[in-house]
Amino acid sequence: MYLCRKIDTMQILDGRTTAESIRKELSEAVQERKRNGKKIPHLAAILVGNDGGSLTYVGAKVKACDQIGFESTLIRYDETVPEDILLAKVHSLNEDKSIDGFIVQLPLPAHIDEMKITLAIDPKKDVDGFHPENLGKMILNVPGFLPATPAGIVELLKRNQIITEGKNCVIIGRSNIVGTPLSIMLGRNTSTGNCTVTLAHSRTNNLKELCLTADILIAAIGQPNFITADMVKEGAVVIDVGTTRISDASRARGWRLTGDVDYANVAPKCAWITPVPGGVGPMTIASLMINTLKAMELKGK
Amino acid sequence: MYLCRKIDTMQILDGRTTAESIRKELSEAVQERKRNGKKIPHLAAILVGNDGGSLTYVGAKVKACDQIGFESTLIRYDETVPEDILLAKVHSLNEDKSIDGFIVQLPLPAHIDEMKITLAIDPKKDVDGFHPENLGKMILNVPGFLPATPAGIVELLKRNQIITEGKNCVIIGRSNIVGTPLSIMLGRNTSTGNCTVTLAHSRTNNLKELCLTADILIAAIGQPNFITADMVKEGAVVIDVGTTRISDASRARGWRLTGDVDYANVAPKCAWITPVPGGVGPMTIASLMINTLKAMELKGK
Repeated sequence: MYLCRKIDTMQILDGRTTAESIRKELSEAVQERKRNGKKIPHLAAILVGNDGGSLTYVGAKVKACDQIGFESTLIRYDETVPEDILLAKVHSLNEDKSIDGFIVQLPLPAHIDEMKITLAIDPKKDVDGFHPENLGKMILNVPGFLPATPAGIVELLKRNQIITEGKNCVIIGRSNIVGTPLSIMLGRNTSTGNCTVTLAHSRTNNLKELCLTADILIAAIGQPNFITADMVKEGAVVIDVGTTRISDASRARGWRLTGDVDYANVAPKCAWITPVPGGVGPMTIASLMINTLKAMELKGK
Repeated sequence: MYLCRKIDTMQILDGRTTAESIRKELSEAVQERKRNGKKIPHLAAILVGNDGGSLTYVGAKVKACDQIGFESTLIRYDETVPEDILLAKVHSLNEDKSIDGFIVQLPLPAHIDEMKITLAIDPKKDVDGFHPENLGKMILNVPGFLPATPAGIVELLKRNQIITEGKNCVIIGRSNIVGTPLSIMLGRNTSTGNCTVTLAHSRTNNLKELCLTADILIAAIGQPNFITADMVKEGAVVIDVGTTRISDASRARGWRLTGDVDYANVAPKCAWITPVPGGVGPMTIASLMINTLKAMELKGK
């Protein structure tokens, strides 16, 4: 009976549906631009090598562009591509007026310095929001590109009317592209922020106790099923950023995506929870699309 | 008896002494540069108007340069100076090869857009570490200028062998120049970081309970005596960033500097505590001096 009540009140934070409504809005914006004779946003993506996850992500980004009506260009290199060739391509995309924004899909092969590539991207075309100038603008809350995954999470909360102000938020994982920027975005003084954020990581001593204080708990560590039910407060909002591929012989492709949260046991305690897949992933791509349109608006085009 | 024991174990985090030893090291570095025929670091400071606090701070910065052997230039404007004149001066300092780093003392008069001025400063000369590119580099942990007050606090902890790793740190106040960057610096994966940081602010609901969890408690809100003894855990490290001038007829100048911490009552509970004045203030100036030397090193000079 108790379990039924809890399941009744638990709601899925559905990234697919939310991302779909964003794509629809962006598609309308593209139509409006066409009617006004304005340039159509054009996203380029550089993909190095044949990593399965990267192929899937880049493919989904190109597909999202098609659905919205953005132009897209996929540039592929063999995984042995020398760093200077990749840098030269970044510089050429920086200069290419037909390209409004571009991304270099991470991770890159070990012989390429990811930071050097990131720093070479023109901040005005950095629609992934990884360049330090954009991260700094996020801190200062001035216009720039917000990193796609944190921005997608904030948008997902906002569009599902989940109040963040005054809430205790615990983020586990301090990566440059998710945990750390998300801690800033949820903590700053905006209508989608104003949480009291604690950023936890591998050196955190009292993780379980800390998680139990969280009104909003965000797991971004890439360890399948790390967050168990005993770590979650009744009625919490749980966001699962993990997407680890684990072997699954029952699937035709031989694997399934698994989040950082033990969903089956955690979900009944939650007010809201994101599924994996179908939670944060689609929102990341939606954010990238929002940034690509923003690239034109920031240029005043 | 109990009180005596606590007072015996409490230690002052002495910013004046620590800053003095940094100045000595920097002074030796200047002598070494002179011996090697290298350029002497040159800091410029722009001061607008006659605000008492700003005059004091800028004066202390110029004095620190003199003590160390740096060159310094103070550029003063009347508080009615138009924004475009100030911007033109920033651009001219960006281009001036004799100036290695410069600051624009904040706050600026209301008719001047502080953010516009900050964004106009060449990040390579931004020794205050306020430019978004430097804030972003701080997030990414790549070489750049760290904002002076947070960097000074981290240095003060480090030079007094206060371990941060795995400690719970609560920072109260999320300003762009203190609380927010400090939350990143103390949380990131470095030998002077690795705290579990919670950033609290005006919308935080459970502030007292939160403060009581802090091994390291940092107050940066500018509200005199806001942190009372009942908010501090026995044995905590307390850092007071507040420097509010409050009227004091017993002083010749008519005011005294007051911190955010009720020092008399909090100090007996602490393992370490910074006084006001003589705690964070001198370390902020020392950090600015470190950044000025670093400006040359980052240029490879």
